[in-house]
Amino acid sequence: MKSLPKSANRLIQEFSNLPGIGRKTAQRLTFHILKTDSERVSELSKALLNIKERVHNCKICYGITEENICSICKDPNRDKNVICVVENSYDIIIFEKTNGFQGNYHVLGGTLSPLDGIGPEELNVESLLKRVNDGMEVVLATNSNVEGETTALYLTKILSKKQIVLSRLARGIPIGSDLGYMDSATLIRAMEDRTSV
Amino acid sequence: MKSLPKSANRLIQEFSNLPGIGRKTAQRLTFHILKTDSERVSELSKALLNIKERVHNCKICYGITEENICSICKDPNRDKNVICVVENSYDIIIFEKTNGFQGNYHVLGGTLSPLDGIGPEELNVESLLKRVNDGMEVVLATNSNVEGETTALYLTKILSKKQIVLSRLARGIPIGSDLGYMDSATLIRAMEDRTSV
Repeated sequence: MKSLPKSANRLIQEFSNLPGIGRKTAQRLTFHILKTDSERVSELSKALLNIKERVHNCKICYGITEENICSICKDPNRDKNVICVVENSYDIIIFEKTNGFQGNYHVLGGTLSPLDGIGPEELNVESLLKRVNDGMEVVLATNSNVEGETTALYLTKILSKKQIVLSRLARGIPIGSDLGYMDSATLIRAMEDRTSV
Repeated sequence: MKSLPKSANRLIQEFSNLPGIGRKTAQRLTFHILKTDSERVSELSKALLNIKERVHNCKICYGITEENICSICKDPNRDKNVICVVENSYDIIIFEKTNGFQGNYHVLGGTLSPLDGIGPEELNVESLLKRVNDGMEVVLATNSNVEGETTALYLTKILSKKQIVLSRLARGIPIGSDLGYMDSATLIRAMEDRTSV
């Protein structure tokens, strides 16, 4: 905007580049920054640089860590025989928040997408094959969309040669949902995979 | 979160401190930053520091500028005899986007709020009185809520001693609105202030 100082327009542009932040929100955030103590803003600025400097991928599971091995892979209390395969390191956080999984993870770093030139070589598949030994359990926890399903199908194919228990996250009605809001594909799946009570 | 690196938790916290950004959005943004080029992140980090270093209030209207006088106050094409009084510098952007106002602005820096200890001395009221000369027009464009109305009422009282045209933004039905969604106060006001066609 013409009437705004250059540095304000620049920050608005930078905020707009973040996902889910439109032009209007970027403007609001910029004016919030203008009102905030310089010290607090400098903390945010430093935190941005620090995370890029310090955080990298865990050598075992490709999750995020500031050391060589992440805290989950290091934890002796976690079951090393169960590996939950996820698309991105963010998915680890989603599962960790539930406190319901005590195994380890393996981050693929995306999904198979031949059209975008992403084949098995671009994902952390080889390292997964090396980690998986006979007698282990592998839970395929890729998303329940086309890319996630394709990737799970591919992993099923190459992992089924091993003597392991291979599973996929259950698909069905989310807890607390109203049947009226469910799509047919989910309803059909929920009916097919019905559990005895 | 325990399983996250320190620097990631810190950035999540910093993002959460921004208005309108909850914990979940802060996590998403943090993981986006992790995936983004270091160079791009450093641009955002620098933009945050730059705006705090360079931007300050215009000596005349208290809007934001990198110089002594803002671009609006400097513009010889703008009508110096019309001053639009707004609460915050962000409000200037809102009006400027409309391209419908060619006068100047004066930023109060908030609204009167005796309970929070904000009296006329805490706002840029004295500087407004100094700027307003006989023959000018002053448009009171504070928000249409209790604080904004109270502030407008106070300004009306102290400005009415001058030989000026004093006005307030029109209150009524927003363009494109459905009458069914309007509150009674707005409907009553719209009826009272009806304009002849």
